[in-house]
Amino acid sequence: MIVVLTGGTGGAKLVQGLHHTVPPENLAVIVNTGDDVEWWGLHVSPDIDSVLYALVDALSTKRGWGLENDSFRCLERMARLGQPTWFSLGDLDLATHLTRTNLLRAGKSLSAATAEIARRMGVRSQVLPMSDDRIATMIETVNGANLNFQEYFVRERHQVEVRAIRFEGAEQAHPAPGVVENIGSAEAVILAPSNPVTSIGPILAVPGVREALRRTSAPIVAVSPIIGGEAVSGPAAVLMRRKGWPSTIAGVARAYEDFLDVLVVDLADHADADHLREGDLHVLCANTVMKSQDDKRELARFTLHAALQARGAKV
Amino acid sequence: MIVVLTGGTGGAKLVQGLHHTVPPENLAVIVNTGDDVEWWGLHVSPDIDSVLYALVDALSTKRGWGLENDSFRCLERMARLGQPTWFSLGDLDLATHLTRTNLLRAGKSLSAATAEIARRMGVRSQVLPMSDDRIATMIETVNGANLNFQEYFVRERHQVEVRAIRFEGAEQAHPAPGVVENIGSAEAVILAPSNPVTSIGPILAVPGVREALRRTSAPIVAVSPIIGGEAVSGPAAVLMRRKGWPSTIAGVARAYEDFLDVLVVDLADHADADHLREGDLHVLCANTVMKSQDDKRELARFTLHAALQARGAKV
Repeated sequence: MIVVLTGGTGGAKLVQGLHHTVPPENLAVIVNTGDDVEWWGLHVSPDIDSVLYALVDALSTKRGWGLENDSFRCLERMARLGQPTWFSLGDLDLATHLTRTNLLRAGKSLSAATAEIARRMGVRSQVLPMSDDRIATMIETVNGANLNFQEYFVRERHQVEVRAIRFEGAEQAHPAPGVVENIGSAEAVILAPSNPVTSIGPILAVPGVREALRRTSAPIVAVSPIIGGEAVSGPAAVLMRRKGWPSTIAGVARAYEDFLDVLVVDLADHADADHLREGDLHVLCANTVMKSQDDKRELARFTLHAALQARGAKV
Repeated sequence: MIVVLTGGTGGAKLVQGLHHTVPPENLAVIVNTGDDVEWWGLHVSPDIDSVLYALVDALSTKRGWGLENDSFRCLERMARLGQPTWFSLGDLDLATHLTRTNLLRAGKSLSAATAEIARRMGVRSQVLPMSDDRIATMIETVNGANLNFQEYFVRERHQVEVRAIRFEGAEQAHPAPGVVENIGSAEAVILAPSNPVTSIGPILAVPGVREALRRTSAPIVAVSPIIGGEAVSGPAAVLMRRKGWPSTIAGVARAYEDFLDVLVVDLADHADADHLREGDLHVLCANTVMKSQDDKRELARFTLHAALQARGAKV
């Protein structure tokens, strides 16, 4: 089993590439749920949805989230009814949230609800929330405001100064069924090019996950979401600096230093890569900017190959 | 104040006509909520919505329910996700249900939630649910099944044999704020051409409403939903027979006999009307089939005129 840890956007792209590279049944995707939000009374799991949509090639390439060819008629009407609309849900997308919310209200766990929706959508890979317990990524600003991730990321467009990042509820949380087991028995573990602080960070904050990564005999390969000192998208760089890590590939290596075997960085970071190679870590260069479907598959193949080579070395 | 008691479909048409005939501020509409249903986890009040949409001239004339120019993309997607879809909610319509459900979850009463939605939609008339308490119109079939109204009406297309009709929760219910007061101080009370059993019936089953109608000094005019022994639409005739009433205009008169002053019937029932005139009741003939906007206004004007004439006689 190839096990991927991921958030939304960038990570979902690599998941899509992997889905075309390994048999779908051999892919297990462990997804951040720290971004989950109650919106219009519905339980929205943005990263899980991005992964599900990516796995059926229905993730909007234009928007990077939501469904291809979606419309926003309900949203426009919500605005007319005076409801908040800074977080967008499409008309087709709404069906996912309505279904999930009903399954949760009926007493199902988030992982059971996700499995049910995945099955209905025709997804053949495993999609696992990091935890069935509620964990909320909270952003404390220098002005003392406490924002949930969507308020920070979407409403404020991450243009507020961050004092601290907390994963509320993480300490008491348990990994969802299959999370630790999949990491333990994996052929390879891949950390997708997602934000190390707010996408992969919450997964690592679930008690037992980091330990499972340290313990597994599987090679662990991360794809850097940082190119040339900046995030491909989103606030990864600024949040990494807030954590005291450099906002470079060295910072990515630092975030995962206790378990990482291979770091795949962009060709643009070739010079820095040479420097990082001085340690134990293997650093490989590839094109990590996934603009086309071919780019996604190419990077997926490269990452898998790197993992399987490292497996040889590690065993 | 002109006070109307109504269900959806036919009643909403007359409400639309009245809205163009009297100043909207002088119109109070008391609406059946026995049809309310929890659908996809949302609180749907079909009759309230029909009235709200009618009051802003947005009720679909083609369908007779829901919003004009709505689409059903979310519904189609719900079907793909294996969710029940025999009850249709449009993409625009969904916004109403999401908003109502959120207001109710936030602790608002149904009447407060309705007032808030009405205000946002630009409705200037009062729209009052018959009660803030949950009352469910339940249909017991001869096979012993207990169906809620939507299961009976929409899912089974009212093609099952009915043994009994119950208004679950009615005995413990209270009229919503304004219901009894509006009836008491009305200039005229109009019973719209809605099903006497399952649209007007639930309103009359709320303790205090029937008494208020008996006591009010306002003239009470009903428009018959029965023409030539058959309902204009829906299962009114068969349900009236089940109650032991004839499925004719005489049956309508019977349903409201303890408070009705004037019954407006269709021109097609002219002969029967002559017979009914023998009692205390005034019976007037008009075109009650509302096909066009003009028909709605014409019938509204006729009904109002009849009420005001009866007021002279009653006072």
